[in-house]
Amino acid sequence: MKLVFSKSNLLKSVSIVMKAVPSRTTMPILECILIDASTNEIKFTSNDMELGIETIAEGTVLEKGVIALDAKIFSEIVRRLPDNDVTIETDSNLVATITCEKAKFNIPGKSGEDFAYLPMVERNDCITLSQFTLKEIIRQTIFSIAANENNKLMTGELFEIKNNILKVVSLDGHRIAIRKIELAGNYPDRKVVVPGKTLNEISKILSGEVDDQVSIFFSENHIIFEFDQTVVVSRLIDGEYFRIDQMLSSDYETKVKINKKEFLNCIDRATLLVKEGDKKPIIINIEDGIMGLRIDSAMGSMKEDIDIEKSGKDIMIGFNPKFLIDALKVIDDEEVSIYLVNPKAPCFIKDDNENYIYLILPVNINTSR
Amino acid sequence: MKLVFSKSNLLKSVSIVMKAVPSRTTMPILECILIDASTNEIKFTSNDMELGIETIAEGTVLEKGVIALDAKIFSEIVRRLPDNDVTIETDSNLVATITCEKAKFNIPGKSGEDFAYLPMVERNDCITLSQFTLKEIIRQTIFSIAANENNKLMTGELFEIKNNILKVVSLDGHRIAIRKIELAGNYPDRKVVVPGKTLNEISKILSGEVDDQVSIFFSENHIIFEFDQTVVVSRLIDGEYFRIDQMLSSDYETKVKINKKEFLNCIDRATLLVKEGDKKPIIINIEDGIMGLRIDSAMGSMKEDIDIEKSGKDIMIGFNPKFLIDALKVIDDEEVSIYLVNPKAPCFIKDDNENYIYLILPVNINTSR
Repeated sequence: MKLVFSKSNLLKSVSIVMKAVPSRTTMPILECILIDASTNEIKFTSNDMELGIETIAEGTVLEKGVIALDAKIFSEIVRRLPDNDVTIETDSNLVATITCEKAKFNIPGKSGEDFAYLPMVERNDCITLSQFTLKEIIRQTIFSIAANENNKLMTGELFEIKNNILKVVSLDGHRIAIRKIELAGNYPDRKVVVPGKTLNEISKILSGEVDDQVSIFFSENHIIFEFDQTVVVSRLIDGEYFRIDQMLSSDYETKVKINKKEFLNCIDRATLLVKEGDKKPIIINIEDGIMGLRIDSAMGSMKEDIDIEKSGKDIMIGFNPKFLIDALKVIDDEEVSIYLVNPKAPCFIKDDNENYIYLILPVNINTSR
Repeated sequence: MKLVFSKSNLLKSVSIVMKAVPSRTTMPILECILIDASTNEIKFTSNDMELGIETIAEGTVLEKGVIALDAKIFSEIVRRLPDNDVTIETDSNLVATITCEKAKFNIPGKSGEDFAYLPMVERNDCITLSQFTLKEIIRQTIFSIAANENNKLMTGELFEIKNNILKVVSLDGHRIAIRKIELAGNYPDRKVVVPGKTLNEISKILSGEVDDQVSIFFSENHIIFEFDQTVVVSRLIDGEYFRIDQMLSSDYETKVKINKKEFLNCIDRATLLVKEGDKKPIIINIEDGIMGLRIDSAMGSMKEDIDIEKSGKDIMIGFNPKFLIDALKVIDDEEVSIYLVNPKAPCFIKDDNENYIYLILPVNINTSR
């Protein structure tokens, strides 16, 4: 095999497939990037058996062939090469020689035979949206998936298509994040749970440009993202997702309009009095025109008032400040509306059209003091 | 006590004194910043008993007083306050109230009585140089002090003044870094060993501007840096520093002139084949007009040729690549000269005037292969 790339093209393709290289695995071949130039096209593949990425690298095939190279070493070499043409050549002993200007690296390769190629997946349903939108919708929801695997479904996000609206939902038992996007076109209804890891990795590869498109295909067990020269295939999470509709309610006793940035900065200041892992709530006291925030901890106490627009009852309620911060950070509106019922019921931060809904459970506080 | 600051002035002063707050200590009072407004001047002090910093904060004294506040919490609070006037007020129970706009923090303080004020040091000899120069000279030598405390003297740097030249030396048993600066003015000869930690911290506070001055005072056991509104006092390291003159020699068998950037990039590429902690040398083969670099490891091998100007004998010699990288990184010259004797003798990277000298011991290699 003998291939020539520009360094920048090579680095781009390697960086993309690196996202599906597992850091630990019992199958050493999966720690490799497969370079397949058995045709006139150069295809890079990586696969951790749950997530797989395939990308077409721009380069010239001088001699066809296939080789699997240790992903970490190979990517490090490429990263540090001078900005010039890079030649990759293999010999009969599967040693790869990587040459760029006067630098010459030799690294041992593996035959591609044992490599786990991506599963062949039937491509039927497909939706198309901009890379910007997909990247945004992931960023705006991914923080409220559960970190631990006790409930597998909570580690993923629901992607639901209904009436040509894509609804993305994540929840961890303490909060729910919901984002809705209207799709351009007619699509059959669909409901799948996509692993959080897949979404995290794909959002790192997406260009984030409004003008770049991404197509999403659904099959029985897989979701496929196709964009630019790249295909990402991921297993879906099995099982019926939580019925969230019954947790959402449009009844409320108190409605607050507040400047988002002021609210966020204030909570951010308050959290410095909370040690990592400590579960001190921030106490919010809502009265006419004023929201008082208060936190008390072993380190000290903090109090701050923020001007608000309020309708309905006064209320005092406690929250885990992190949950408020996470939600407020991904809302672009200058002003947000908060809906509350009582100190034990969840609060909702949502816009009028419910394009976003953030539900947060309160923390029990001793309101008598 | 009642003081008013602008947030930016307060943050600046707090950030400066934070550099001498110990992260762990058996004396909790040392984890505090002392705010002393017993006169009309506001002085912030921190002290870890080896290094102490005192800075005058710009602010208004509405009511005189003294208090010690937990440095970490206090600095975190200041950092996150809105950009406006900040008031610090203490009550008779030593509780400090920090107010800015509508935010109000209460944190417990301590009486200043137990605080270890900076030692009173007699100020005799003093040299003056630009903050830029001092910051540079530290950066250019600090990497070759020893990390472990087996030999206390190796954890510091020699500051030697002789014939109005300041010579700064660091060494760790494998290499020596020397920088010389001509001083403007007449100064008595002096020789002290300054703790590396002091130099690291002070270089973070120095502005790095050519037009800003710093005065350095020497006493029996201390060194004092005075600049802007700040005084840094540090203990010196006791003992006679190593006699380095006998390790330096101007004899050589081979002299090489090489482009610094090419050389540095090449070694940097080679090191990716060396695992952290692994002691693989880079092998340098010097012939007429060409320097060949080679590294072999379990991960693979690398070879690269660089054009050089050479005079004297051919030589093959091995080095710890990190030592070469460290020295080359802090040399500003486009082209560097390397002087070699034989594969077992140290090499010197130095300029013609010996304003800098980097001595590096070679690694034994099997030159027969």
